[in-house]
Amino acid sequence: MRSPRTYTLAEIARLLGGELLGDPNTKLSGLATLQSARAGELSFLTRGRYRSQLAQTAAAAVILGRADRNATLLPRIVCDDPYVSYARAAELFYPLPPARPGVHPSAVVDTGAVVASSAEIGPGCHIAEGAQIGERAVVGAGCAVGRSARIGADTRLYPRVTVYHDCIVGERCIVHSGAVIGADGFGMAAENGRWRKIPQVGRVVVGDDVEIGANTTIDRGALDDTVIEEGVKLDNQIQVGHNVRIGAHSALAGCVGIAGSARIGRRCTIGGAARILGHLEIADDVHISVATVVTRSVRKAGEYAGFYPMQDKADWIRNAALLKHLASLAERLRALETKIEKNTGQADDQE
Amino acid sequence: MRSPRTYTLAEIARLLGGELLGDPNTKLSGLATLQSARAGELSFLTRGRYRSQLAQTAAAAVILGRADRNATLLPRIVCDDPYVSYARAAELFYPLPPARPGVHPSAVVDTGAVVASSAEIGPGCHIAEGAQIGERAVVGAGCAVGRSARIGADTRLYPRVTVYHDCIVGERCIVHSGAVIGADGFGMAAENGRWRKIPQVGRVVVGDDVEIGANTTIDRGALDDTVIEEGVKLDNQIQVGHNVRIGAHSALAGCVGIAGSARIGRRCTIGGAARILGHLEIADDVHISVATVVTRSVRKAGEYAGFYPMQDKADWIRNAALLKHLASLAERLRALETKIEKNTGQADDQE
Amino acid sequence: MRSPRTYTLAEIARLLGGELLGDPNTKLSGLATLQSARAGELSFLTRGRYRSQLAQTAAAAVILGRADRNATLLPRIVCDDPYVSYARAAELFYPLPPARPGVHPSAVVDTGAVVASSAEIGPGCHIAEGAQIGERAVVGAGCAVGRSARIGADTRLYPRVTVYHDCIVGERCIVHSGAVIGADGFGMAAENGRWRKIPQVGRVVVGDDVEIGANTTIDRGALDDTVIEEGVKLDNQIQVGHNVRIGAHSALAGCVGIAGSARIGRRCTIGGAARILGHLEIADDVHISVATVVTRSVRKAGEYAGFYPMQDKADWIRNAALLKHLASLAERLRALETKIEKNTGQADDQE
Repeated sequence: MRSPRTYTLAEIARLLGGELLGDPNTKLSGLATLQSARAGELSFLTRGRYRSQLAQTAAAAVILGRADRNATLLPRIVCDDPYVSYARAAELFYPLPPARPGVHPSAVVDTGAVVASSAEIGPGCHIAEGAQIGERAVVGAGCAVGRSARIGADTRLYPRVTVYHDCIVGERCIVHSGAVIGADGFGMAAENGRWRKIPQVGRVVVGDDVEIGANTTIDRGALDDTVIEEGVKLDNQIQVGHNVRIGAHSALAGCVGIAGSARIGRRCTIGGAARILGHLEIADDVHISVATVVTRSVRKAGEYAGFYPMQDKADWIRNAALLKHLASLAERLRALETKIEKNTGQADDQE
Repeated sequence: MRSPRTYTLAEIARLLGGELLGDPNTKLSGLATLQSARAGELSFLTRGRYRSQLAQTAAAAVILGRADRNATLLPRIVCDDPYVSYARAAELFYPLPPARPGVHPSAVVDTGAVVASSAEIGPGCHIAEGAQIGERAVVGAGCAVGRSARIGADTRLYPRVTVYHDCIVGERCIVHSGAVIGADGFGMAAENGRWRKIPQVGRVVVGDDVEIGANTTIDRGALDDTVIEEGVKLDNQIQVGHNVRIGAHSALAGCVGIAGSARIGRRCTIGGAARILGHLEIADDVHISVATVVTRSVRKAGEYAGFYPMQDKADWIRNAALLKHLASLAERLRALETKIEKNTGQADDQE
Repeated sequence: MRSPRTYTLAEIARLLGGELLGDPNTKLSGLATLQSARAGELSFLTRGRYRSQLAQTAAAAVILGRADRNATLLPRIVCDDPYVSYARAAELFYPLPPARPGVHPSAVVDTGAVVASSAEIGPGCHIAEGAQIGERAVVGAGCAVGRSARIGADTRLYPRVTVYHDCIVGERCIVHSGAVIGADGFGMAAENGRWRKIPQVGRVVVGDDVEIGANTTIDRGALDDTVIEEGVKLDNQIQVGHNVRIGAHSALAGCVGIAGSARIGRRCTIGGAARILGHLEIADDVHISVATVVTRSVRKAGEYAGFYPMQDKADWIRNAALLKHLASLAERLRALETKIEKNTGQADDQE
């Protein structure tokens, strides 16, 4: 994909590290997959399954791992981790536009709010009283930052993000459109056949270097805070209940739901649409598969899973019907075992 | 958590009801969990599992149930339902800021819209022609209230809520950011290999005292209305299809999905991420577990569940593979039973 | 439901096609279900289960299929597909309000953006530099259209839609409130125990005649584009990962999640809350049931399913516990079979 910048292969190699093979003056005008690359573009090989595409690629140069050092004759950079090098090359070719300091005339900044002079406040934003926007932060069009909320330096809110009152977002965070940080947790007490709302007065505290996906929601704590530690990555449409804590550098895929007061360890990965029940504890380095329902605390690092496997619908109907009678199947098996045991005894007697 | 207000224990006891034990003049500056409470704060014991925290708490006073009357020597209020009393104490310490009457200069109120003089319309809102905003209602920054929609008295829309044309939200409701009330239902007719959209011209009618979570979506009816009855509580990221009816005082946890024309009874609870298929009827007082797929009407009050239990991934792989062959397992069991029956017959003959 | 327009039955029959029976001058003031219809309204019978309502309906006339030609004496239109005819009648009675050309004074259109003179730009919108809005397009209140994005002719964005920079939405599309088109895909490389973000620089390209539901999110590609082909219908709260391709005329129900780089064929239907894992291929004309997790490519058209069936909770607990030991149940069955085989051998020997 065409970049606004160009580099020589030598420059890229110097910036990324790695061994340069081939013409160092190869001019590079962008980055692309092996299949999509056009003349003049840099590409990369990160997975074995794409190796066959090396032969046909129109790329001018390629990033690859040590094991693939000689898999092509193209000018190339050989490195330890081509996926990381691809990420860094993409940063070079496609830097984010920096903050354009200033408050758009259509934005509303209440008295008592503090906006750093290097920050960018987009059209139609509302920054409520007492809120603070850090240096070089970008607040996209139509965002609402509530009373006394704080947005850290170098953090970027894409358009239409809501941060409720008193919530804190760290530095260098990215929050995508439609995310809602700090709505009330789902707390209520049953009283005479009705629900009495429990005021939710804790905050959401988001650490540094966190990314929050589009339309993800993180509820404020009931009294204590909901905490997202540094380096956590949340994909789109994740729901985080009140008083949850997510440990540093954990990554959660799209549509995950975490019920109130659950605690997730550090460096965990949670597959898409997994559900974690309330008040559970998940240890560090736990990996939960897609669509798995976590109903108990997980004390030990490792991989966990649990979802119904897909089949032809007709087969599924047959198997799922039996599944509802698994207990009786097990009883019949037990009865047979007993019977056999007895018969075998008789047979033995006859010998 | 520090409150803008302070009370004596005697005042709290009088406002909440319950038996006061200890110094009635104990000054209380806020409410906190047993573990987080600082000097001068009121705490509460609602679950047995937190009883051990009573000994260490720094709280100045505690709310607890009759069974725990003597579980501490701290100044305390003994009551029937400490969870309800905690909710009410939180209301006392942390009242919501009332509406600040007036339309923000950056808001757009179309001609023909009627905004009560005691209502607050936040920055950047759009109130379309014919819409009505009730007394003391709060419409947060960036909300869009469509043509002829009605928002009841004392209702609060947090920032960036959308209410489509003609929809009705009752009194004393709370709607969190990103919620969308009244988008088109998913209705279409297959015609020559394409989909023809069916115009969705019903409304959404939301009763009084309903809470709607962040990024929850409630579709308008195709012709008749989608109805959310009074006192219903919807958590975040719930999807309600067209023509659904949810009975009074039911509570649905996050990420639940309800397909079109389903009818849910009164006082039901639906666990997170449960799915209810279209055109079903759920009786009153039905409780559905987390992640359960409801594929048939439920005529009888009670608890229902159905999701795959989590395991170590290796165990899951083995079991899930077998699950796909449950029908053949059952056949083999049946065959064995027949064989044994026959053998046992022979064995009997031999006796 | 009362329409702003009235028709005679003869006019409707002429516009829809079909055989007219009864008084052609019957005046029709709106469209309604059989049960809700009031005097003067047109109704329809599309499903056998509603046939009994024909006798009681207050409708002035009815649309029905050939098989039901004589199921009522009411004035009627007999046609091949009453569901399609109902859709078309609804279009006649309830046409969408056309674009009201012009840019609302509160909207912000950056220099370099091009807005067709027949397009409507609502209050509080932001149209960023280089963006293009097509003829007769409607951009609802509070939408954000990013840098160099393009919205096709006759497309309608309801309030509070976000379209990120460079993304393209085709002609005659409908995008509901809260939808986010073009947020970053969830791409990152592990590096020294942290996650390094991979810049997401591809686009989202949405074809013509696509409908996108409320709060649905479609991520931009990492380098190549995410593509939604023409005629695709996406319900609410769907998550589409980066580099996904969805084939023409496929329809996805609410809360579906599609992980990165999956490819879905043409004319597929995906049930609510189904999950499709990354890098899979789904053939044309595949139908996936509600809540099914697709973990492998599906090469053959047909119906597929896989979710745990609901039961009384007590039964589910018993069965789910056994499910975790299915492998050992199967081993016990195998052991029994071996034993029986041996015993039967002995029994045979004895004969």
